[in-house]
Amino acid sequence: MPALRRDDLAAMDRDDPLAYLRGQFDLPDGLIYLDGNSLGPMPKAVPARLDEVVGRQWRQDLIQSWNRHGWMYLPTRLGDRIAPLIGAAAGEVVVADSTSVNLFKLLTAALRLYPDRRVIVSQAGNFPTDNYVAQGVIDFLGQGHELRLVTGDDVISAIDGDVALVALTQVDYRSGHLQDLGEVTAAAHDGGALMLWDLCHSAGALPVDLNGAGADFAVGCTYKYLNGGPGAPAFLYVARRWQDDLRQPLSGWLGHAEPFAFEAGYRPAEGIGRTLCGTPAILSMSVLDAALDVFDDVAMADLREKSLALTDCFIRLMTQECGGFGFELATPRQAERRGSQVSWRHQNGYPIMQALIADGVIGDFRSPDILRFGFAPLYLRFVDVWDAVAVIREVMDSGRWDRPDFRRRAAVT
Amino acid sequence: MPALRRDDLAAMDRDDPLAYLRGQFDLPDGLIYLDGNSLGPMPKAVPARLDEVVGRQWRQDLIQSWNRHGWMYLPTRLGDRIAPLIGAAAGEVVVADSTSVNLFKLLTAALRLYPDRRVIVSQAGNFPTDNYVAQGVIDFLGQGHELRLVTGDDVISAIDGDVALVALTQVDYRSGHLQDLGEVTAAAHDGGALMLWDLCHSAGALPVDLNGAGADFAVGCTYKYLNGGPGAPAFLYVARRWQDDLRQPLSGWLGHAEPFAFEAGYRPAEGIGRTLCGTPAILSMSVLDAALDVFDDVAMADLREKSLALTDCFIRLMTQECGGFGFELATPRQAERRGSQVSWRHQNGYPIMQALIADGVIGDFRSPDILRFGFAPLYLRFVDVWDAVAVIREVMDSGRWDRPDFRRRAAVT
Repeated sequence: MPALRRDDLAAMDRDDPLAYLRGQFDLPDGLIYLDGNSLGPMPKAVPARLDEVVGRQWRQDLIQSWNRHGWMYLPTRLGDRIAPLIGAAAGEVVVADSTSVNLFKLLTAALRLYPDRRVIVSQAGNFPTDNYVAQGVIDFLGQGHELRLVTGDDVISAIDGDVALVALTQVDYRSGHLQDLGEVTAAAHDGGALMLWDLCHSAGALPVDLNGAGADFAVGCTYKYLNGGPGAPAFLYVARRWQDDLRQPLSGWLGHAEPFAFEAGYRPAEGIGRTLCGTPAILSMSVLDAALDVFDDVAMADLREKSLALTDCFIRLMTQECGGFGFELATPRQAERRGSQVSWRHQNGYPIMQALIADGVIGDFRSPDILRFGFAPLYLRFVDVWDAVAVIREVMDSGRWDRPDFRRRAAVT
Repeated sequence: MPALRRDDLAAMDRDDPLAYLRGQFDLPDGLIYLDGNSLGPMPKAVPARLDEVVGRQWRQDLIQSWNRHGWMYLPTRLGDRIAPLIGAAAGEVVVADSTSVNLFKLLTAALRLYPDRRVIVSQAGNFPTDNYVAQGVIDFLGQGHELRLVTGDDVISAIDGDVALVALTQVDYRSGHLQDLGEVTAAAHDGGALMLWDLCHSAGALPVDLNGAGADFAVGCTYKYLNGGPGAPAFLYVARRWQDDLRQPLSGWLGHAEPFAFEAGYRPAEGIGRTLCGTPAILSMSVLDAALDVFDDVAMADLREKSLALTDCFIRLMTQECGGFGFELATPRQAERRGSQVSWRHQNGYPIMQALIADGVIGDFRSPDILRFGFAPLYLRFVDVWDAVAVIREVMDSGRWDRPDFRRRAAVT
């Protein structure tokens, strides 16, 4: 394979049918932002939308905005906007609360659906909150459930007749390994178990087909590849066939069939509405609504094609330009096995990442030794990949990562 | 008692030491806003703070803002700002999630602390979400707990040796009846029970002394009298003495002792931090932070004095000007028994309220027959009370409330 030159990448940008999407983001100068898998950048539509929701709806119309501006319907309306991005139908998704809170609702609800089985299968390397919440659910229910954690990526062999639920993150937050949604869901069902997917690191980055796979439940985050802003509310999905039987424990007034009838007893809403709990976060949801406009005319398959081309280029260029510096690829080389990020192990990963950030290449570090680079296809250019690798090479060549201030750990890494 | 004239109220405004606070709010022209007990108006500091958090922190500093701008500490820092408004100490309050979600955490945690008792005492007329959440907790624990609902305001006589927890809203959302925080808390403790207060309709409107009363737990909302914006995150309080033993089931990663160590097992944070769950809602919390500036130099006792003067005037004027129209006072006449709102029963309450809103007097209606008017002392003038009553008189005199479009119920009432 011939060496890649910067001109080759510039040519790929010229041929990129999605290149125009970068113009919909307000990106700061002087940064190559490879951390959209942690916090997406600001879509340009956001400030005007905030002016509208704060300056007019809140300031001017005050309490009347609940009716006049449809505040009450934001959770379901935003759910319906996210649905096509994850292979769900209208009425199967809501936006509400945080991913952790939504996991609590659905893990608990799932275990109640299959009371004769007592095991949740997940991965030891799952994002911590997923397993912490499962531990909380098990402890809270007090019925002797077990969280069976698999080391490595093969969860299918851990599914037996005791398993009520398989709960996995589709793309591993450290390695970027992509689970096969269809295959794992089918294996869970073959084993008589339910399937819950955490889409935090996949929604908005690649095609997800929940209904095609026959998945039962899903949760996900909107501040990564969906660019909803810091701490934006999360989403959850419940397959239509489960909605009538679903009982989730966070039975707040917004999940009631008639919240404003102020009835004494809880009576769950029909459909997905029963997964709601408290008053919706109107400002954050309005920002997310504006951010989702970016996806209006985008085919997820096209995004995936560009995403894989970006990560392919990054792996090739790191091998070509930085082969002698001790980086070890932690992400699958096979395109169909990885998400939209590339991770490298390096024993000096932490100070190296701090040096890169100081030079304007923003990735992040995950213990114990992972340098993580996200490649969001909505706004990254192929030349960004070249320029990022050039900085990495320069930081390693010069040895300037080896400074005490780069070794000092920050509170949030 | 001599009749009140508008001049008398204008004189009270001239003498009002808190009159300057109105200038800190951006109030729309042409409205008398008597619904700050449902959604507070926008403090003037909000747009600049949004520019900062969206335009600079999110847009420019992106992921680095977690460290650079202290995003991770917003839940505890905002809790410490609310603490003095409710008689709590620093380290006893956090801002997180919704009131309903926080109720779930604390109701569950409270029942676990007192496993030998199986009854929660509350009021049948409590705000619905409080009782719905209690029903959800009881259902999912599956240990035969009972929700004992008292009709009327005397809950003390319902406390017996089976009661684990008394869970009350301090100010009734319909009647405005104010519970005696100290007396009820003492009665709960005398009966061997724990005490949880819902401060949704009192925090920011009147002095609350949780620690003085010896309360155990509290929750509350920030979008009413604290003016945090629509759907702003809620707060919760745990008395210092319970924090080490507290186990709440929503064990998400933000409640972990070291969220960024990404440990396999959940290990709760020391202190109040263990009540956190998912990623904090940065935009909403930043808006709340700006809104709380209004309280910086305000003594809650002064606010209470003005609040009672406003509600006194309203009751007097309604009797004086609207005595013949069939309004029946639903709020206690004794000042020490009411919050910062006044409610009237009227068989045509719904269309009358719609007519008032059409004429720029914004209150709200609560089934079956309650017209509810909130008097937030931070920004209301005494002449507003006069002018509101003049509109009510005019609407009743003219009979113009009796129109089909006013009788048609909106989705959110």
